[in-house]
Amino acid sequence: MAAPERIAIVGLGLIGGSLALALRRARPQTWIIGVDVDARTLEQAADERAIDAAATPDLVRLDGCDTVVLCTPAQPLLEMLPSVAARMQPGALLTDVCGAKELVCSAGAAQDRVIFIGGHPMAGTEFRGYVAANPALFSGCTVALCPPVGAADAGARRDAIRRVRELWTSAGAETLLDVEPDAHDRAVMVASHLPYLAAAAVAETLIESGSEAMLARELAAGGFRDTTRLAGDGTVGGAAALNRFVPGAARALAERLRALADALERTPDEALRRLSSVADERRRMRLPTPAPPPAKPFPR
Amino acid sequence: MAAPERIAIVGLGLIGGSLALALRRARPQTWIIGVDVDARTLEQAADERAIDAAATPDLVRLDGCDTVVLCTPAQPLLEMLPSVAARMQPGALLTDVCGAKELVCSAGAAQDRVIFIGGHPMAGTEFRGYVAANPALFSGCTVALCPPVGAADAGARRDAIRRVRELWTSAGAETLLDVEPDAHDRAVMVASHLPYLAAAAVAETLIESGSEAMLARELAAGGFRDTTRLAGDGTVGGAAALNRFVPGAARALAERLRALADALERTPDEALRRLSSVADERRRMRLPTPAPPPAKPFPR
Repeated sequence: MAAPERIAIVGLGLIGGSLALALRRARPQTWIIGVDVDARTLEQAADERAIDAAATPDLVRLDGCDTVVLCTPAQPLLEMLPSVAARMQPGALLTDVCGAKELVCSAGAAQDRVIFIGGHPMAGTEFRGYVAANPALFSGCTVALCPPVGAADAGARRDAIRRVRELWTSAGAETLLDVEPDAHDRAVMVASHLPYLAAAAVAETLIESGSEAMLARELAAGGFRDTTRLAGDGTVGGAAALNRFVPGAARALAERLRALADALERTPDEALRRLSSVADERRRMRLPTPAPPPAKPFPR
Repeated sequence: MAAPERIAIVGLGLIGGSLALALRRARPQTWIIGVDVDARTLEQAADERAIDAAATPDLVRLDGCDTVVLCTPAQPLLEMLPSVAARMQPGALLTDVCGAKELVCSAGAAQDRVIFIGGHPMAGTEFRGYVAANPALFSGCTVALCPPVGAADAGARRDAIRRVRELWTSAGAETLLDVEPDAHDRAVMVASHLPYLAAAAVAETLIESGSEAMLARELAAGGFRDTTRLAGDGTVGGAAALNRFVPGAARALAERLRALADALERTPDEALRRLSSVADERRRMRLPTPAPPPAKPFPR
């Protein structure tokens, strides 16, 4: 019998913590090393038996791991990638969960010690930290996976692909989508980073509004809540900052809003026809409503 | 014993239909006349006994009603208000549900036959029409009510205020908020119309995006769904078009987005600190999640 797989999860926040909990439930044999800068997080994850061993990033032994998953916020993730790869055993799998893939996969390709496969699970909530983690977070979700880069050994690459796919499938993912890093970043710009920036700008408007703010909060119905929910997820901002398509798209969105404002004043009938057509199209998208998270995060 | 109150609801869409269903359940004695241009809607509402009588707008006898509630889309509502008031009995109550109050209350003040009290229930879904109506739509919601205008009789005004408050309380509203029309429109601009326009602009970006559109749809997680949900509610657009504070606010939002795009390129650390502070504030808002609508719209 082969030795159980050893996986290090670096960063036990919402995503890393949920991944640990999901893997623990689906693959009890897998040895999970939790890595975090926060001692309380490590303690809590160990208490819940989400991880088998706990370590801080500077002290963790990564050369004993088959797989390392980077789950920290975007900028530190990009910065630590080379040094993490350098400390792993040659030919092992390094992967990540960052919402921007071009820069991260470039960093993965700039070394040839390990196989790097960029990943991005399309899941999240506006809450953060290990306290918000739950084993069902990835249930039914889509995970984008980029082509392997780094170490060139063909056998090791096939093995790495198999392992990263098994990782997400056992964590609950329903669809694994093979995608090039730049196509990913363009698509995620529309699907996530632009909605995030719009939500943040709208939320900021309410936060900074003066005398009408209190009344606006009393009058805020489900529309405001839903439109701005994503603004509470600060981690998306980090990925958006690493996505080179975002600034141009945000300027185009600004122009779209300005044109809409002009149309509402000058040609309201036309503006309303346009908005009504958007409404019809949006309803037709029939985007699924996710299952609510389980009441208890994890059975102790 | 006084005769039962007679209420005409003009427009049996999501809001008017839900109001009829809620009143029928809470006040079975109230005589409800459903008014709509669509014969099938009238038939369905009558079949479900949501209404006691059905009529088209041109044929309905409004002079027998104590209260008329205008529940049509914003622009037709504004246009029909004077002729509806002219056909009612003097001193009766005319009220509405439009999301813009300045123009509508001005139209109500331009006649002196009936008491007009502008109302705005803060409730809705992205679905529309009588088929989407449900008697719990207003359960726990806030309703903004403007000061009475029109007929000057003090006794009739007191009576009208009492009746409009009872109307919404029995429909399930939890908070009745007395508010001036211009303060309402400023607040609703921030709370609803601006989020709506942002949602529509983001949804339109996805709809118009070319090659990346399919991939973007596959990658669209809960963030896109929630941010753009409001864009599916075309009725908000009609109210936004009647709100004089909207175009300026939309231009300010565009400027905010453009500045954010510049900051992400030039001073990303600063941009991320700003976004992170918005995220913290947004989470602190702790906006309530509404109760799901009942599985069955109405017991037959």
